[in-house]
Amino acid sequence: MAKLDLALVHYPVMNRRGEEIGSAVTNLDVHDIARACRTYGVDRYYVVTPFADQQRLVAEIVDHWRSGYGATANPDRGSALATVEVAASVEDVVEAAQRKWGEPPLLIATGAQARGSLLSFAEARQRLQDGTPLLILFGTGWGLAERLVRTAACSLPPIDGGNGYNHLSVRAAAAIVLDRLCGERVSG
Amino acid sequence: MAKLDLALVHYPVMNRRGEEIGSAVTNLDVHDIARACRTYGVDRYYVVTPFADQQRLVAEIVDHWRSGYGATANPDRGSALATVEVAASVEDVVEAAQRKWGEPPLLIATGAQARGSLLSFAEARQRLQDGTPLLILFGTGWGLAERLVRTAACSLPPIDGGNGYNHLSVRAAAAIVLDRLCGERVSG
Repeated sequence: MAKLDLALVHYPVMNRRGEEIGSAVTNLDVHDIARACRTYGVDRYYVVTPFADQQRLVAEIVDHWRSGYGATANPDRGSALATVEVAASVEDVVEAAQRKWGEPPLLIATGAQARGSLLSFAEARQRLQDGTPLLILFGTGWGLAERLVRTAACSLPPIDGGNGYNHLSVRAAAAIVLDRLCGERVSG
Repeated sequence: MAKLDLALVHYPVMNRRGEEIGSAVTNLDVHDIARACRTYGVDRYYVVTPFADQQRLVAEIVDHWRSGYGATANPDRGSALATVEVAASVEDVVEAAQRKWGEPPLLIATGAQARGSLLSFAEARQRLQDGTPLLILFGTGWGLAERLVRTAACSLPPIDGGNGYNHLSVRAAAAIVLDRLCGERVSG
């Protein structure tokens, strides 16, 4: 089993002017990314927000599908949401991953622009196969704050479809990154 | 430029009991999949629904971002939604694609289960590179109705993360399929 965790960061992220903000948790980010994490065997999907009301919202969503009505109506969804954990900060996530794996995870940033020291998808895939614990950060809003990117050991390259457009939703970007790191290889 | 169209089908699809239904259009399916289509150079993203009120809803969403307030506030979103077209049926989409490309498109189904005659991702990628027009169908609800799968020439294999879980959102599945067909190749 790959030692892989994912964190969806709601603070600190950027607004469209590049200013640092905290963004709101959305129900769909929790669901869609949890389903992708469950598909590709991600150990924990951390939803990172320092705001208590937002943390409660995530806990309520997860509870509904894990043990509430949703658990009976759609058990597959509960199985996906079992990967979700709430965290107050990226620092807390790094500590939790370190405790779990017995060594610090390789902290990897992502984003629509190339920032920081780039690690290719092939290299990241290889590190994972070699048993290195990876923690991949995804930003909401207009992306991870600069100081978070600087904290990370490296960044994955932006996903480039070759058409000069780099505005994927974070849900789509997370799905593609997980497929590139953990999916079966497609040749040709 | 690849001859590639995508259709998100709201009728005929299945409910959780495998019965044929029509599903409701969601704002987020329109946005997320349009952004992925724009990223990977898909020519048209057809939102297929026979229901007039649902067709109007899609037209309103697209108008807001193409020429309404959204066009000024976020022009990148308008550029993605420019790929969106409303269609009443898959038959109509096939006819439109045939008119556009001068030959009938290869109609390809997708889904969480392996159904119909399978075409590997590598083969589909090769067909696209050879200049064959492809039209890829994605189902909402619990997936494309059986009769649609039978109409298609072939199906892509289900996306399998190797963990026995096949409940990706259609938004994530579409993003991954486009990356596998049109994205840069990741080796390793």
